[in-house]
This record gives sequence, C-alpha cells and structure tokens, in this order.
Amino acid sequence: MTSFNYDEYYKNLGDSVNKTMDKYLTPDPNFPELLNEVIRYSVFAGGKRLRPVLLLATLEAFGIESTPLLPAAAALEFLHTYSLIHDDLPAMDNDDYRRGKLTSHKRFGEAAAILAGDGLLALAFRAIVDCLIEPDLLILMIKELAEASGVRGMVAGQMADMYYEHKTVTPDMLEFIHEHKTAAMIAAPLRMGAIAASASDESIALLTEFGYSIGLAFQVMDDLLDVIGNDQELGKRSRVDEERGKATYVSVYGIEESKKLVDKQTAHAISLIQHVKELEHPEYLIGIAKYLSKRSQ
Amino acid sequence: MTSFNYDEYYKNLGDSVNKTMDKYLTPDPNFPELLNEVIRYSVFAGGKRLRPVLLLATLEAFGIESTPLLPAAAALEFLHTYSLIHDDLPAMDNDDYRRGKLTSHKRFGEAAAILAGDGLLALAFRAIVDCLIEPDLLILMIKELAEASGVRGMVAGQMADMYYEHKTVTPDMLEFIHEHKTAAMIAAPLRMGAIAASASDESIALLTEFGYSIGLAFQVMDDLLDVIGNDQELGKRSRVDEERGKATYVSVYGIEESKKLVDKQTAHAISLIQHVKELEHPEYLIGIAKYLSKRSQ
Repeated sequence: MTSFNYDEYYKNLGDSVNKTMDKYLTPDPNFPELLNEVIRYSVFAGGKRLRPVLLLATLEAFGIESTPLLPAAAALEFLHTYSLIHDDLPAMDNDDYRRGKLTSHKRFGEAAAILAGDGLLALAFRAIVDCLIEPDLLILMIKELAEASGVRGMVAGQMADMYYEHKTVTPDMLEFIHEHKTAAMIAAPLRMGAIAASASDESIALLTEFGYSIGLAFQVMDDLLDVIGNDQELGKRSRVDEERGKATYVSVYGIEESKKLVDKQTAHAISLIQHVKELEHPEYLIGIAKYLSKRSQ
Repeated sequence: MTSFNYDEYYKNLGDSVNKTMDKYLTPDPNFPELLNEVIRYSVFAGGKRLRPVLLLATLEAFGIESTPLLPAAAALEFLHTYSLIHDDLPAMDNDDYRRGKLTSHKRFGEAAAILAGDGLLALAFRAIVDCLIEPDLLILMIKELAEASGVRGMVAGQMADMYYEHKTVTPDMLEFIHEHKTAAMIAAPLRMGAIAASASDESIALLTEFGYSIGLAFQVMDDLLDVIGNDQELGKRSRVDEERGKATYVSVYGIEESKKLVDKQTAHAISLIQHVKELEHPEYLIGIAKYLSKRSQ
C-alpha cells in the first residue's frame, strides 16, 4: 500500500473540480451578473472540496476513470455551498464570517444570499445530468443526490438542529442531527461512486457505513475544533456553539470522549474498507479517513 | 373538436397529482414532523396545479398515457410551491398572506419557511426520478426541470425582479423578468411532455413558444389582477405591486394595452398549436390557453 497525502491528492483533483464548476458558472445573458457574482463568491471562497474528492476517490478506488463523472463532483460541491449560504442566514445560524470572508448575506444582502442558495441547489441537478455514464446508473446517482440533500437527509438535519437549540438534547437527537445534517452528504459520494462502478449491494452497504462513520468523525471534529481550535485557522469565530445553545458532541460527551469517538469511528471506517472486494485502490479512501481525523481546520 | 372545461379537466388530473404529492410527503422517522407539517401546509393550500396539469395535458394531447409520469407532475408543483414560499419571505416580497392563509414564515417562522422551500426543491428532483419512462428521456426531462427552475431560469427572474424594484424599468428588463420568473416554468411542462413523447425538434420548438406565450399572458393577467382584482377572490392583498415599486406590465403599458397583450399572446399560442403535427388532442392545450386568458384569480 502506497502512502497517501490529502493535500497532494486534492491538488490534482481539486483543480478539475474547480474547472468543472467554473464551466457551469460562465456568465451569459440569461444568468444575471449579480447572481453570478454572489454564487462565485461562495463557491470559490476556498474549502477542502471534500465531497467531490470523496466521489472521485471512490471511483479511482474502483479503478474507474473519474473524468466523465466530474459534473457529479461539481454537483456535490454546489449542494454543499448552498447549504453553507442558507445555514449562515440571519434566520438560521446568523453568521457574519465563513472561511475568513464575510458571509454571503453580509456581503450581498439576504435576498441575494437566499437566491444564490436556491440557484446552487438547482444547478447541482443541472450539472449532474451531464455525466457521461449509462442513463440508468445516472438516474440512480441523481436519486442518491436528491435523497441525501433533501427532506429525509440534509434538510431534515438542519431542521432538527434549528429546533433543538436551547433544549436538552438526548444522544439520540444528537445522532439524528449529525447523521442527517452532515453524514448523509458525506456518505452520498461514496454511494454514488459505488453505483457508478456497478458495485455489489454488499459493497455499497459497506461503503455507506464507511461514509456515515467518517461523516460522524468529521462532525465530532467540527464540534471539537469549535472548542479547541483557533479562529484564524478556522476562518470563522470559534466557541459559538455554546453561546447558541447548540447540541454538540462536546457538550453532551465532553472533550476527551469526543476525541476517542473520532478515533473509534475512523478505525471502524478503515476496517470496513478492507472488506470491499472490488476495490483496486483502498488506500485512497483509507488516506482520506485518516486525514479527516487529524485535521485542524 | 370537443369543448373543454378547465375545472372539470382539473378535477380529474388534480386528484392524481395531489395523491402523488401526498405519497412523497408521508411522515417517516427520517422526515422531521415539523418540516413535514410546514411543507404540507403550503403544498395543500389550494392552487390551480397549472404546471402539473400542463404536463399531463401535453402528454394526453400526444395520445400518451400520463400516469407513469405523475412523479414529474408532482415535481413541477413542488418547485412552484418552493418558489412561492421563498418569494414571500421578509427579505423578498415580505407577504403575510397567500391563497387566503398566512404565508409559511408568518405561520411557522423564517427558518422553517426557508428549509421547507429548500426541502421542496430537493424533493422535486427526488420525485422525478421515479417516472416510468426510458432512462435517456428521463434524463432530458430532469435537465429541463433544472434549467427552467435554475440560475438561467426562475431564479434569474426572481433576482432581476428583486433588484429592479424602485428602478426605471425598460420593456426589455420587464420581458427578462417575466420570461424567466414565470414563463420558463410554464414552458417547462410543455417541453418535458414533448420530450417524453419523443416529439420532433420542430414540435418541441412550437410547444416551447406556446409555453412562453401563455406564460407571458399568465403573468400579464397576474399584473392586471393585482390592479383590477379583489382581495377576497385572489386570497392575497391586491395593489401591492405599485406600493413596492414593482416592474409590471400594467405600470409600463397601462391596463388597456395589457389586456390587449393577453388576448394577442393567447391567440398567438393557439395558432402555434395547429402546427404541431403529432398532436391527437390539441383541444386540451387550446382549452387551457383560453381558460388562462379569462381567469379571475
């Protein structure tokens, strides 16, 4: 097994993802200039491109060329970006900064931010139809994307998160929030990649569990970084969860238990990967799981 | 040619559309109860189901069974409902009433309304994948839906509408707003139906122009009803466009010219239908065009 470096791996894939997103954001007479500007401001504000990279890494792990599926990678990032813009709105988390820059509504106003989010949501589904793959597999991928981002996925998680604020949150409620708000959209690229590779049901189930495990570890790290991270590295204010009365792993389990949970979920995820028989390059997914458990931003 | 009655026609199709939408809104443990309630409140608040009916009427006009495509009809209505919820938000049109009921954010709060809209947008794409039709045609239909609702379609129109408020609006700007904000999503069911029927490019082009023509007539009627309609029949406050400095056909062209424009666009639309060679039942689409030009709500 070769060694794996996320930053290097990302450098190669990230460029292709950015170029693909750029193509969908080319200004034209039907695309109002201001709307284009607002969307580009958030899409190209930086970020790890984790969800696209997970899709492309899954495809490459199966030994499948990833280029024909770049539109699906762009779609995942468009959806992620929309969720950040809407989550930051005054009626939601009311955040002023994101990735070291003013949030969309602070910079362009609320109406523009709402519409930029709506536009990105629709653009994700416009982009994914351009994937070069058998139509029946593409439809299954679109279904995954819609499920993971929808009323039984990410939107469900955000709704629960908003309405549990300042309430006594049980471990079950916390699990619901994080599974739906974060992990569903981290498991989606794994499932979509496996579908594109025509993987067995058993392998899809293993990769789904891998996705939920690293997604949970990712969210617990997020909660930890809010408490032990520093603002400059994070590009946003830390220690806001407590102020807001947000339900987090740290507030429910404490710092030490949360750290242990990250390691446990990561180890569990890695152990699952070994059982996915069709994988030619399991080291890509293992490398990403390890990288996520050590991140500082 | 048999006579056509929209209300009777709608009664048959509307029930099937409502049942299909209901299926996607069945409560389950992954779908938070409050989110479900907020969405159902707006989806089942009444309305003409115009976009679904236009899709089903197009299919029937081509002599194609419409039942297998009911999920696409539901998708159109989900998208329309999301657009109403977000357009009513305080940062947008700030409306308190819609269809005679409190708007979503007035009833449930802003965060819930934003998330209900987001959820409906994703649910539209989740629903449409369930259509029973060849996968390659379905992908083309999904592409239409994403284009019409997206940054070069409905969202573009809403953005232009918001940012032209209280500015001197030229006829060109007004055309851009209405073509994108309203007509694109009225032409979409026509195009989707024609695609499902494997219609010729010529027929698709004719039906697209039909859609834009009745869409424009529909929007001009909306502007007229805001001035000459009564609140009770409309289910919302009238005469708000002027207060807001909204760009409307009536403010640019006056009442009489606007009425003439409705008749002209409707006559033009009907003349186009005669040229669509494959249609077995042109009377459905002609009937809808006539109905829309005479509506009082």
